Formats: sequence, structure tokens, C-alpha cells
Amino acid sequence: MWRDLLPLGRDARSGGYRRYAWTPADGDCRAWFRAQAADRGLAYEIDRNGNQWAWLGDPTAGQAVVTGSHLDSVPDGGAYDGPLGVVSAFAALDELRDRGAVPRKPLAVVNFGDEEGARFGLACVGSRLTAGQLGPEDARELRDGDGVTLAAAMERAGYDPAAIGADPERLARIDAFVELHVEQGRALDLQSAPVGVASAIWPHGRWRFDFRGEANHAGTTRLDDRHDPMLTYAHTVLAAREKARLAGALATFGKVGVEPNGVNAIASLVRGWLDSRAADEETLAGLVAAVEAAAREHGARDGVDVRVVRESFTPVVEFAHDLRDRLTALLDPAAAGRGTPVPVLPTGAGHDAGILSAAVPTAMLFVRNPTGVSHSPAESAAEDDCVAGVTALADVLEGLACG
Amino acid sequence: MWRDLLPLGRDARSGGYRRYAWTPADGDCRAWFRAQAADRGLAYEIDRNGNQWAWLGDPTAGQAVVTGSHLDSVPDGGAYDGPLGVVSAFAALDELRDRGAVPRKPLAVVNFGDEEGARFGLACVGSRLTAGQLGPEDARELRDGDGVTLAAAMERAGYDPAAIGADPERLARIDAFVELHVEQGRALDLQSAPVGVASAIWPHGRWRFDFRGEANHAGTTRLDDRHDPMLTYAHTVLAAREKARLAGALATFGKVGVEPNGVNAIASLVRGWLDSRAADEETLAGLVAAVEAAAREHGARDGVDVRVVRESFTPVVEFAHDLRDRLTALLDPAAAGRGTPVPVLPTGAGHDAGILSAAVPTAMLFVRNPTGVSHSPAESAAEDDCVAGVTALADVLEGLACG
Repeated sequence: MWRDLLPLGRDARSGGYRRYAWTPADGDCRAWFRAQAADRGLAYEIDRNGNQWAWLGDPTAGQAVVTGSHLDSVPDGGAYDGPLGVVSAFAALDELRDRGAVPRKPLAVVNFGDEEGARFGLACVGSRLTAGQLGPEDARELRDGDGVTLAAAMERAGYDPAAIGADPERLARIDAFVELHVEQGRALDLQSAPVGVASAIWPHGRWRFDFRGEANHAGTTRLDDRHDPMLTYAHTVLAAREKARLAGALATFGKVGVEPNGVNAIASLVRGWLDSRAADEETLAGLVAAVEAAAREHGARDGVDVRVVRESFTPVVEFAHDLRDRLTALLDPAAAGRGTPVPVLPTGAGHDAGILSAAVPTAMLFVRNPTGVSHSPAESAAEDDCVAGVTALADVLEGLACG
Repeated sequence: MWRDLLPLGRDARSGGYRRYAWTPADGDCRAWFRAQAADRGLAYEIDRNGNQWAWLGDPTAGQAVVTGSHLDSVPDGGAYDGPLGVVSAFAALDELRDRGAVPRKPLAVVNFGDEEGARFGLACVGSRLTAGQLGPEDARELRDGDGVTLAAAMERAGYDPAAIGADPERLARIDAFVELHVEQGRALDLQSAPVGVASAIWPHGRWRFDFRGEANHAGTTRLDDRHDPMLTYAHTVLAAREKARLAGALATFGKVGVEPNGVNAIASLVRGWLDSRAADEETLAGLVAAVEAAAREHGARDGVDVRVVRESFTPVVEFAHDLRDRLTALLDPAAAGRGTPVPVLPTGAGHDAGILSAAVPTAMLFVRNPTGVSHSPAESAAEDDCVAGVTALADVLEGLACG
């Protein structure tokens, strides 16, 4: 099953995946999903937002337990982010069958469309539409780098963009959604644990810092006469790192724009984007305020004007405590014969599970990532850990649907 | 005369000049030059490289004294860089006439084409071609941002690109070239002097620093697990400023490129260009080596690979000492009734005078720039200082050609 999926949408040069929403590579992945459903005799269905579902049992015969993730990728992404959750979902159903477990509730595997937002710039479009967090008008008008609207892209791929929108009836029929995902950090590796349970998704946001100085000749302007915004930017980059370290949080400047961006010109404007995340909103607000204060302090010294604009903000997502506690109990080492209690850990990354958690009891399982590398062809997970992930997911589904 | 030139090639929005080689704005400036020559009964001539000449006296009747500068501009440049030298040249001839001075040598005003290199990326094309420092084949193949070759641009403007090339006969007929230019720093202002004489053009160069780290997820990668080249870049920017201050030299990072340049991605590559200049080549080499050492030291700490490539280098230009001493003697305060001796100062900027100095005795006069701002609409010079510049240039021309 994994072997069939591996070559789809893979770039020969980079070795990374380019599975963008509504492209042929995405279509190949969707065909793979449908074939997996057919192989298992599962009822296949596409919802109004283009998300794929494979049902074991009658979807209408009671509250369902759903698992799954996404098959699309970031540019030159790895093999595991997304697909591991879908492959593990089918494998867990196989394991339940092998165990002879009999579900008392409908069980489903789901593939949410366009989770990474690599093509249209907005993440989790499939789950956002379903949960009513993205309006169909706004969604249809999203454009890719070539100016193609999401509506046109859906239509070309054979889907009906007029049908998209909130799907509360579907969500009302779900008792629990459990998403398995490769970890995008090294927390499990540092605890020598193959599998963990998510506690929360950290609050996160993007802030644009505009540093405005004065363009001048790099060859003739005395150092003391300069208003060089590159210096203020450099101080702010280093301050962000230091303040994040002190706060036990994350702060990154990964995107920069410079005007006039000439070799022999002192910059008039340096624009840097801060991505910052922390365990709670208070810590995050304090961190960003500290970075901004450092920027203003250095700006005053450098004769550079500093302006900060918050471009986006996502509050903390606390996964349902009841469901999380059921998962940790189901994965209890004494009950399962494992050596150590399952770690419960937060993540800094967004997921479909984070979107759905507002409407449905939602939980996540993480599988160890030995290097922590993510969104890169070097992303990896050991085979034993992937098997442990399937076993854990099967334990959870058995407990939730067959208990 | 100045009033007629001011509106040509001026952008209404920025207030800056956009007089790029072989454009209609450049043609307007050239028409202005030709009209100035005609108004004074000067013999007008265009040389094989498109530089304009206006002659007082028979060009072939002995060794000539030449003055002038350029009329083109950087993007959104100021009114003085270049034009002040051409306007002052015509005004100085007027003053000689008013004084009743009789030249014993031919006198010329020159407008060198494409000094700033704003369109084709290479500075001083007109003087480089004339001095044989740029081959005609290479010149014709220079391309602007739209892919138009210099050959095609010249042809469209009505000039013959087949004719361009070295012009040693012309240079051999020149006894001295004196370029007047607005100062691009504040040295004269700090000495309260309206006019100065150039000693040298500092050696200068461009070095590309490639900082290579590891792309990763900005929301999930622990600070300790990162190889973030933005940090190493920031350290290097600050180190360059500090080392330049210690060396009494200049170092600027004004151009940056980032990959993948995504808000939520730790950069894999940050590329920064260092422009550095110093009074002598040993100081410059030491400064660049110190910046490179700082980059490598921080790179080793950050887990970031550092590579440095020298993209260009221009050795020091020492203006002819004999001619320089004649200028300072001609501008002697006792002789001229001025209050203070004329300052002799170096500059960090390149000029046509720097190119010609290899083939012809060359000198420069600088006019005070009260703010030091250059290559900007805010560039300025006081009217009294411009008049003092014309008087000084007339004194020099009178001494060199009428003495």
C-alpha cells in the first residue's frame, strides 16, 4: 500500500513531493485512496468539499469514529507529513479485522483536501470549508501563483466548485476524529518514545516588521551619517532568537524584502516577517512585544523607523480533554504491555484536527521523527515506529468504536 | 541654463531623476548640451562612443584642457550628481570670457555617456570605451532589464554602435581633464569649506556571501536543532559595521536574497552582498578578511556553511600629483583671497575622472554637500557653494589654459 503511494507526485531532481491541490499529482493520490477503499470493500464517498471518505459499516447507523489525514504536500515536502496518517488509517482497519474486532459504530478513513495550502496560500481548505471556517465565496476566489482560481482548478479536476460550503450534518454524525501524524520536531525522540498523544496546538502568528531608513551611497556615506535599516533588522533577528530562547518558545525570520536592494546602496527599507509560536497566548504576546521593543530600541539608535503589523493570528487549540484522556488510557503501558507511559505533547504546527476540534471531539497521535526534519525530502520515520503508530491507532479505534 | 535642465527626466511622483543611457530623457539632456554649445558659439562634436564635446578654440591647435562630467542619473537620483559638473563647466567658460581671459590652449566641455550604469549595469561606459578599458564587443552585448542590448539601444537613439571603441588619438590631445562634482559625503561640510580637491578614489569591491543552512518548519523545529542561516547573516551584518568602524573604512550589506523566503520556513540559503571601500588596498583586504572570519566563526556556531566570492574589485586611483598640486596652488587662499586652504580629500565613489586617470592627467573638484545625501532626490548643494565651485573651476581653467 505504502509502496504504491511513494512514487506519486515525486520530483526526480529534488526527491521531494509536489502534491498540490487539484493538480494531476493530487489526482493520482486520490485514485490511490479510492483503490485502497475498493480493495477493502469500504463504501467510497466524496463530500461537497472534495474530501474523500471510505466507510466501514453504514455511515448512518450511529455516531462515527473517523481517522485520517491528508495526501497533499508542501513544495518539495517529505513522504510522511499527511500520507502516514492515511496509510496508517487503512492499516489500522486491517489490524482490527485481523484481531476480529467488531465495530459497534461506523468507522471511516478520510483524506482532507488541500491541507498544506501550497498552491492557494491558505492551509486546511478542505477542513475549513467543512467546519464553516472558510466561506465558499472566499474559497472560490483563492488564486494560485499563475492566477488560477480555486474554483477553476476544482472544475478542471472534475469537481463542482458550486457545491462547496459548510457541512454541519456530516460533522454532527462524528463521535470522534483521530488524526495520526509524523511528529515535526524531536520531542518523542528525546523521550525515546515511538508514539505520543497531542495536548494542544500552540497559538501562532505572523508579524511584518518594516524598518525604514534612508537610501544613500554605500561608497561615500560616513558610517555616522547613515540610517541603515539593515543594521536594525540584523539586531532584531538576533533579539528574536534570544527572547524566544528565554521564553521557551519559537521565533523565526525566514522571509525578507529589501528596497532598493542594490549592492552599492544603503537600503531605504528592510521588511522582515516574524513567525512566532509559544505554549500559551500570554507567552506569545510577551515574546512578540519583547522583539518589537528590541527593534524599536535599536531603531532609535540607528535612526530607523520601525513599524509592526500583525498579519495573522491563530489562537491556541486545546484538544478535547475527555478524548485525550481516553487515548492515554487506551495506550496505557500496563494495559498494552508497553514500557513507558505515552507522552502527551503540544505541537507548533497547524492540522485539519485543529480546525475540526472546534466542531467535533478531536485527538492526534504523533509518530517519532528521529531528526525532527519536516517539510523537506529528508523527513523520515523508522519502519518500527510506523508499525507502532498503526498498532496504537488500532488500539484507539478499537477502544472508541468496538468497546 | 540650470533652470532649463532641471525638469528633464524628472519623475513627478518621486521627485528623483531617471535619466538612463539612450532613453528619451537622456536624449533631452543631450539636446540641452548641444543648445548650450550653440548659444556660446562652441564647436559641437560627438565622439565615436557617443560622448558629447563642445570646443572653445580649434581642437587641433595644441594640447587641450577639458572639463565636464555626465548628465545621466541613477534611479531616482538627485539633480547635482553629474549635471553640476557640466553646468559649472559652461558657466566657468562664461566667467573666463567675462574676465577677458584668453586661452592659449583649446578648451572643451564634455558630457560622458552612461556614467551611472543604471540601465546596463556597468558604470562609466562612455569613458571606459574611450580609454580602452571596455571592449566594443563586450559593450554592445550589455543588456538592460528588458533584455535590450546596448547596441540596439544606441541604434534606436540614432547612434552607430559599430563605431564604438578605444579612442587613444582623442586622449593623446588632452593635457588635463578636470571634473567638478557635488561631494557625496560630508567631509567639506565638516571642514566648513565650499570647495575641495580630490586626492584619490578609494579601492572598492563587491563580495557575495552565501550562508547555507537547512530548511525546516518554523513552527516545530526546536531552536537547538536549527541550522538557520539568517542568524549567521545577521551576525555578519553587525560584524561588518563594527570592523569597518575600527578600520576607518566602509562596509555595507544593501542587497539580500533568501531561499525559500517563506514566512513559516527556516531559510536554507541567505545570500548577502558586501560593498566595502577603504583608503588603501591593505586596509580593505584586512577589513574584508575580518568580516569573512566573523562570518565563518558564527557559521560554525550556527551550523551554517559560509562561502565568499569576490564579484568585483577596483584598485585605488591616485590622481596625478603634479596636477593636484597645481590645482591647490591655483586655489591658494592667499592668492585668491579665500579664508582657508582648499581641503584635499579622497572619495569612495567611482567617476569618469577615475577611468581617464590611467591615460590622461586628471583632477577633480568637489562642491560641498550639506547633508552628504547622494543618489537620492534629497541630494543638495547651496547656491553660494555652486557659485564658489564655478569660480574655482574658472580659476583652474584659467591657470591651466590661459597662464
